[in-house]
Amino acid sequence: MNFLEEKIVKEGIVKEGNVLKVDSFLNHQMDIDLFNEMGKEWKKRFEGKNITKILTIEASGIGIACITAQHFGVPVVFAKKSKSINLEGDMYTAEVESFTHKNKNQVIVSKKFLNESDHVLLIDDFLANGCALQGLIQIVHAAGATVEGIGIAVEKGFQTGGRIIRNLGYQLESLAIVEAMDWETGNITFRQ
Amino acid sequence: MNFLEEKIVKEGIVKEGNVLKVDSFLNHQMDIDLFNEMGKEWKKRFEGKNITKILTIEASGIGIACITAQHFGVPVVFAKKSKSINLEGDMYTAEVESFTHKNKNQVIVSKKFLNESDHVLLIDDFLANGCALQGLIQIVHAAGATVEGIGIAVEKGFQTGGRIIRNLGYQLESLAIVEAMDWETGNITFRQ
Repeated sequence: MNFLEEKIVKEGIVKEGNVLKVDSFLNHQMDIDLFNEMGKEWKKRFEGKNITKILTIEASGIGIACITAQHFGVPVVFAKKSKSINLEGDMYTAEVESFTHKNKNQVIVSKKFLNESDHVLLIDDFLANGCALQGLIQIVHAAGATVEGIGIAVEKGFQTGGRIIRNLGYQLESLAIVEAMDWETGNITFRQ
Repeated sequence: MNFLEEKIVKEGIVKEGNVLKVDSFLNHQMDIDLFNEMGKEWKKRFEGKNITKILTIEASGIGIACITAQHFGVPVVFAKKSKSINLEGDMYTAEVESFTHKNKNQVIVSKKFLNESDHVLLIDDFLANGCALQGLIQIVHAAGATVEGIGIAVEKGFQTGGRIIRNLGYQLESLAIVEAMDWETGNITFRQ
């Protein structure tokens, strides 16, 4: 087991309905030292890639993306989930459906912050069915920019998101891939 | 002018209706080196305070809070703005009204991540009328924890939020306080 799998086993809680709660260190309370380990690991896995920008989506991707950005020396852009009165002018938009919240959101990035010279690393905390990620990829393509790689903290390997992304040829580096969870025993099985 | 005021003058855009757009470095695209300067400055201003946790609110506070946390060596908790199916169990809640979005949100923090032994530094990107901040203070008090200080990137000094918070006796350290903006000339005046 790697450092993130160990943390999940130690502090993650399995709930009925294939819900994995990692809110003590990943997406409510945030363990910044752990995020630094994750950033260091992605830097190693994307060695040799020319990355100019990290793109994530609000809210729980932002902290991981910012700490990871220090390892790549690039700015972060976070996609917004709804139209704000302060977001005006030309924007890239994609519609995505949230697995967690069971609703649809417009994902929005200002055209000022992504263009065809950008080589983008996508970062997010969770990958399940992959709709949010598909929305981010759509936006990078709309900008004429390049997806250099995708870094995910926790992938639910028993859902389709990761397989689709890999089938499309992207370098997807999930630091922990959960193959199975048993809410009655609390047991978590990771992909080797 | 300090480093943040200089950045605002260089990259901020004044819009009609007292809107200051700082989305190229603060709350859409994020300049991580700048965030580190901010973290370092707050560390200096809150010297001698025993801080055990940073509390912020989604979404644009999260990046600043995470980078700042590295200067204090503490975890970050971000308050959520709406009820999620993954947020269960006992929660602290406060109702706040957004100046930007003209709507009301429930601000939520799990009781697991704040308790009476916590000494909390509140961090956010903007302070205008201060409703979000009042919600966070309410939650810290509900937890029996202590507000050690409040770090804000940009305060709109011509709105009431900052004055109210200082009147209540909190140490509020805003790194840039905008006294006036002129959208026709683009001129920005900072408090000395």
